[in-house]
Amino acid sequence: MNGVPPADLLDVRQYINRKTKCLTDQKPIFGLIPCQAGSGTTAAVAAMARRRQYVQVKNPYLETMEEDILYHFSLSTKTHNLPEMFGDIKFVCVGGSTNRMKAFAQFIHQELKQPGNPEDLRDICEGTDRYCMYKVGPVLSISHGMGVPSISIMLHELIKLLHHAQCRDVILFRLGTSGGVGLAPGTVVITDKAVDYSFRPQFEQVVLGKVITRSTELDEGVASELLQCSSELQNVPTVIGNTMCTHDFYEGQGRLDGALCSFSQEEKLEYLRNAYDAGVRNIEMESTVFAAMCRVCGLKAAVVCVALLHRFEGGQSTAPHDVLVDYQQRPQVLVSHFIKKRLGQII
Amino acid sequence: MNGVPPADLLDVRQYINRKTKCLTDQKPIFGLIPCQAGSGTTAAVAAMARRRQYVQVKNPYLETMEEDILYHFSLSTKTHNLPEMFGDIKFVCVGGSTNRMKAFAQFIHQELKQPGNPEDLRDICEGTDRYCMYKVGPVLSISHGMGVPSISIMLHELIKLLHHAQCRDVILFRLGTSGGVGLAPGTVVITDKAVDYSFRPQFEQVVLGKVITRSTELDEGVASELLQCSSELQNVPTVIGNTMCTHDFYEGQGRLDGALCSFSQEEKLEYLRNAYDAGVRNIEMESTVFAAMCRVCGLKAAVVCVALLHRFEGGQSTAPHDVLVDYQQRPQVLVSHFIKKRLGQII
Repeated sequence: MNGVPPADLLDVRQYINRKTKCLTDQKPIFGLIPCQAGSGTTAAVAAMARRRQYVQVKNPYLETMEEDILYHFSLSTKTHNLPEMFGDIKFVCVGGSTNRMKAFAQFIHQELKQPGNPEDLRDICEGTDRYCMYKVGPVLSISHGMGVPSISIMLHELIKLLHHAQCRDVILFRLGTSGGVGLAPGTVVITDKAVDYSFRPQFEQVVLGKVITRSTELDEGVASELLQCSSELQNVPTVIGNTMCTHDFYEGQGRLDGALCSFSQEEKLEYLRNAYDAGVRNIEMESTVFAAMCRVCGLKAAVVCVALLHRFEGGQSTAPHDVLVDYQQRPQVLVSHFIKKRLGQII
Repeated sequence: MNGVPPADLLDVRQYINRKTKCLTDQKPIFGLIPCQAGSGTTAAVAAMARRRQYVQVKNPYLETMEEDILYHFSLSTKTHNLPEMFGDIKFVCVGGSTNRMKAFAQFIHQELKQPGNPEDLRDICEGTDRYCMYKVGPVLSISHGMGVPSISIMLHELIKLLHHAQCRDVILFRLGTSGGVGLAPGTVVITDKAVDYSFRPQFEQVVLGKVITRSTELDEGVASELLQCSSELQNVPTVIGNTMCTHDFYEGQGRLDGALCSFSQEEKLEYLRNAYDAGVRNIEMESTVFAAMCRVCGLKAAVVCVALLHRFEGGQSTAPHDVLVDYQQRPQVLVSHFIKKRLGQII
């Protein structure tokens, strides 16, 4: 069921070895993992400790500030004890929709067998309506709205939050929906490279009126591990491919059903075919800045989006509601499986 | 209290005459206005009728579609009677925050003395969490999230909705918050031109991988009428100025408190001073695409944002909560006054 991929597990492992220089470097390094628990020598433990990475910001001014207000989270270093609230976070899962990220928090609460009732989870950002945020053990689930600017604001404040909270060895996942390119609806795409509208693996950031370019490469090890996870699950058809990130849902993605449309069906298909030839397997609206910011800050990150429709065939999904709900759960099921494996709950 | 402006009413009128070629063309043309009600001849009524404009889309494909699903509103031409639901809409007010646009709907409900309890207003988009939407008589209040891509999706579906509903003579307002440039916090800015990060009055739109440029000029008549309204209100200090629209809240706007910052305080101030010299009085994240899309579709539109802080002084607002709440209500008070005048509730 995996596209780039492999008819059987052996092939998956070959793919993983090919894509990953040293899989052991990608292994969890924050304990709780049975396979490591019994094997450590003092030297190995020290080496592990050295590899433990605090989340870094790239801003010398932050340390000089008396208070840092994370305005769009309604949190602050003065009014909240961020290390106490968030110091144990190891996995951050972000997605566009508030309802979906609440549902994911409740789902992972059950999957990780956390105490208490998942219905009682409290929105940590209830003081604002910009984003929602739920904490479930070592997992943080946050919404980011739609588009690069919206997720970018959230990422600035999230990275500062993780830094202030002295978090270490954190992995970020974007769980989303997307349009598929050459894929059956319901296929999950793990992003190899996040590319722009010209299929380049880069993100253009304006800094004080000047355009700078950042790389959008994601962590190969995490992507390979996710692909391995998908092969262990039923009903989560998964491929690794490039993800095109646009700043527009209609004209930018070649939809014929926006308020504005100045191109033909043939021109649309030509653009999508060129995208396919460039390795693009799905289209969404946040992956480039997500990849770029995580990379600059040295955070491991992955993008896992389900394709709700096949864009060669049209712009609107006519799949029944329950089918769409099933599709949207697939990235959640896959990332949950990854987290449980990392936490040693699945061996 | 008005900046570009005028110490007294005479000056305001002179400003308006200077900015507006023919103010009568900007007068309301959909009835209910006392000054016109008694003055119509048959010819004048016919002329008025000719000027009545249905909301146009610029997409020949739409007419050929059996069903148009406004996916992010959870509405459709098949499942909803859009002309019946929305045919009488004359004013559409949009803003980033769901809570604020609900509060605006409740506020305008009271201002227009609509029947029923404002607390009972129902979110028309309750089937989705992407946007919220409230209808109060001829006024629609909708949230659009943060950033150009998020408001662009909303605008495509809003313009299609107004088209399908056969609405005429609609004016759109963006009511927002912003950073002020050379202004006291709490000042309301009516946008003259929406400009990009290089202070150009244009919006770059990618269409099938190619960049096209659209004008971001707004309706001068509506802006002038809003400025006139501000002179009739207490405690709504208002200026007309250019509004810079960025795709990023931190690096793009010269903030020193993001997770990433590679420039100095001096470089930041130089950029903001250059912006001021180019006529920029505030910075936000949606105005260029709002202006561009409304212009392409022939819709009159205005951007009315309050400056929450003075960006020469810093990046974070430390104003008390109740002061910020007061500031955020000012664009609402101003636009409400405009609407009441247009509806003949204030003469």
